[in-house]
Amino acid sequence: MDLPVDEERLRADVEATAEFGAIDAPEGRGRTVLAGTEANREAREYFVERLDDAGLDVRIDGVGNVAGRWELESAEPDAPAVAAGSHLDSVVEGGIFDGPLGTYAALEAVRAMQDAEVESLRKPIEVVCFTEEEGGRFASGLLGSSVAAGVRSAADALALTDSDGVTLDDALEDIGYRGEGRLNAGEWDAWLELHIEQGTRLESMGKEVGIVTTVTGITHCDVTIAGETDHAGTTPMGTRTDALAAASELIADVERAGRRAAGIGVDADADYSPGDETERRNADAETDTDADEDTEADVDMDAESDANDDSDSGDDRDNEGTAVATVGRIDARPNATNVVPGRVDLGIDIRDVTREPIERVVNAVEASLARLETERGVETTLARPLDVPPTPMAERCQGVLRRQSNETAISSTAFHSGAAHDTMHVARVTDAGMLFAPSRGGYSHSPREWTDWADCAAATRVLAGALADLAGV
Amino acid sequence: MDLPVDEERLRADVEATAEFGAIDAPEGRGRTVLAGTEANREAREYFVERLDDAGLDVRIDGVGNVAGRWELESAEPDAPAVAAGSHLDSVVEGGIFDGPLGTYAALEAVRAMQDAEVESLRKPIEVVCFTEEEGGRFASGLLGSSVAAGVRSAADALALTDSDGVTLDDALEDIGYRGEGRLNAGEWDAWLELHIEQGTRLESMGKEVGIVTTVTGITHCDVTIAGETDHAGTTPMGTRTDALAAASELIADVERAGRRAAGIGVDADADYSPGDETERRNADAETDTDADEDTEADVDMDAESDANDDSDSGDDRDNEGTAVATVGRIDARPNATNVVPGRVDLGIDIRDVTREPIERVVNAVEASLARLETERGVETTLARPLDVPPTPMAERCQGVLRRQSNETAISSTAFHSGAAHDTMHVARVTDAGMLFAPSRGGYSHSPREWTDWADCAAATRVLAGALADLAGV
Repeated sequence: MDLPVDEERLRADVEATAEFGAIDAPEGRGRTVLAGTEANREAREYFVERLDDAGLDVRIDGVGNVAGRWELESAEPDAPAVAAGSHLDSVVEGGIFDGPLGTYAALEAVRAMQDAEVESLRKPIEVVCFTEEEGGRFASGLLGSSVAAGVRSAADALALTDSDGVTLDDALEDIGYRGEGRLNAGEWDAWLELHIEQGTRLESMGKEVGIVTTVTGITHCDVTIAGETDHAGTTPMGTRTDALAAASELIADVERAGRRAAGIGVDADADYSPGDETERRNADAETDTDADEDTEADVDMDAESDANDDSDSGDDRDNEGTAVATVGRIDARPNATNVVPGRVDLGIDIRDVTREPIERVVNAVEASLARLETERGVETTLARPLDVPPTPMAERCQGVLRRQSNETAISSTAFHSGAAHDTMHVARVTDAGMLFAPSRGGYSHSPREWTDWADCAAATRVLAGALADLAGV
Repeated sequence: MDLPVDEERLRADVEATAEFGAIDAPEGRGRTVLAGTEANREAREYFVERLDDAGLDVRIDGVGNVAGRWELESAEPDAPAVAAGSHLDSVVEGGIFDGPLGTYAALEAVRAMQDAEVESLRKPIEVVCFTEEEGGRFASGLLGSSVAAGVRSAADALALTDSDGVTLDDALEDIGYRGEGRLNAGEWDAWLELHIEQGTRLESMGKEVGIVTTVTGITHCDVTIAGETDHAGTTPMGTRTDALAAASELIADVERAGRRAAGIGVDADADYSPGDETERRNADAETDTDADEDTEADVDMDAESDANDDSDSGDDRDNEGTAVATVGRIDARPNATNVVPGRVDLGIDIRDVTREPIERVVNAVEASLARLETERGVETTLARPLDVPPTPMAERCQGVLRRQSNETAISSTAFHSGAAHDTMHVARVTDAGMLFAPSRGGYSHSPREWTDWADCAAATRVLAGALADLAGV
């Protein structure tokens, strides 16, 4: 059904939330809202007041997850709830839409049903805010949803400490959000999350919403390369074991493997052949690294179409062009201009919508390190501290989102999410779906993050209809 | 003349000095003696006492340089002094020979002349300790000698501050070594410095002393590479401007240019042609990077011989194999595994015995950055905060050291110094020479730094004879 949403009401909630932890930013609007801080308390308090205003039944679980339940008398006894929401915390100096938009869109969906005087729903609806989605204080992210999905115990989560040794338990107690019990995502009939895209695909395609097919798998590799720390002046070029020079080859190999996995500039099916340097370098020399070239995403998005006339669904699960590989972190020791680096630590991030290309890049990393050990005499180690498999969204959820975009004549497309979301955890225990609103310029985790209010409202309209549909209006 | 030196007396002084600022080290013997600290005061105090014991006339100049003067009645009126010495400060967690050996070798040379009852010298001899050779507290190094050579004014030096804002002036006042006037190296007839090699050339050649031909020039380049900070998951491979991936190409280019300048594995005369990536990469693929290969230094050292039968002088001023280029420092921002790096800062160290190869490597850096701007869309900057020209040692000083090694039957070879020394400054204003003692395993700036006591004594014997010769015995 097409439920008119109140753009001004939604905007007022997102803008009010933007005031908590607000920072001065030369451009855009920024905020810093870490879990369990005063700014987080204010954001939660305002949210709970809005849930109360809308007549929802609020509960806070043991790790501070907040759920507001709306149940009509028409609901079937013990019917599982349909849930939607997102998070209210932010990264340090983040934007105002990432999290709050999805949280208040879920509430606005309920308010839209109330305005439309929906009187019969077979299932309750829950509006949810998860604790510490962004990470950065207690964990690496997706904390509240990991407990709700049973991936991590509440006790383990509460014992996590920040850099000052404060536990999540104490931090939540301090702000009055250490509740009881556990919000159990496994009890939900379905889950939907609206989020900003954090990329430019919708903008470049001129689409209003994106329907997520898969949240990419994420593998992190921690690499160490040990050479010999030496005097930069007294150690001849031919006798050094320079860990940074070795690392530079690894960084190039990771980029090359990522581009290869994404099918850019090289034959995507070609085996990675670390032994044949000349051939690889020749192949790479032909690669166009112009930042303005057509991206694999742009090319891919329109490659397929769908039975739905109004929705341009270019599902990218065929895995061309979605792989990414990044060396984001590097630390060299002793890191002095006049000393040959004896050790380098690197952090690599690899993502794709299926496991196979991720493994191919990891294999390329392993092959690169083996080659560096042989050719340069360095010693290397490789650990894999994070390894989350790709998470396909439930076809039921994708379908209801597609139908709603159709019914509301809000243009949509289908693609994967390269960013991690709480939905990854929820999808382990129930049917889950995600909906993206356009990010102007793709800015994310920055005060420059922006989504036009009309786009926020359009995406919320699709969410509202989909929630009503799932709840059995 | 062959002056017998007292190995035990020399050893006692170096070992006593090793106690000041001594640190616990799992291997070897370490010390931390920064300029103007309590450990530095103790080391200076012990030194001044030894100068007094030997009957030298001690003076402390305005920046804490210490000189002990030995003048026989035979000295000609107003004859310029012949000076020798080194420094007593160390790097953080440095070794016990770097500095103290040369300082006490100079004193031991005088004591050896006294023991040998040398009664006629036409010139006075000065035994010198320069302030803050290593840098690390107030300046980047060679501080006291820069004032003695008139490169920097005493006032400028005294106004330098450490990281806590303490001035050199106050630090020297605190330890009682803020003297008066200026030790003027330009007044010396000649200067000799004995130092540990900080490399393995003597060890690998089985020679007892090295006679320095040239102290290499040193150029530092500070490079910044600015790309775009982006989400590692949502930014397709084809649309990123990854500053670290760009930096990895620069690092490889610097290593390649350094090896090329040193004539390793590639035609040393070949022009650097950044436009032809394929050719360069092919050439490099054929390069043997085995750390055990014969080094240019090994090959070069025996390439020439000399009229002197006992001295194997392979002067490397013909510039094959002496160039080195190092990227020692790298800082990426924001330096998080899941973020595409938006900015990388790098520090490059380039050295050689002539200017031309240094300029060739700097040109290669510039060409690499230009290519990265074109091909990757990054923005780059290049600064040159340090640019010290190569410093040839005076032929007069090299000659007297060669003759002494010959006369004492102490085996020697000639080569350049890749490390910077106070002698670089002194050589601007008077004839200067340097003598190296072997470093076991080449360890330097580390508690593992070691020179056998017999090697210390042998080098001191050459120094003593050379000083006597220069002073006109």
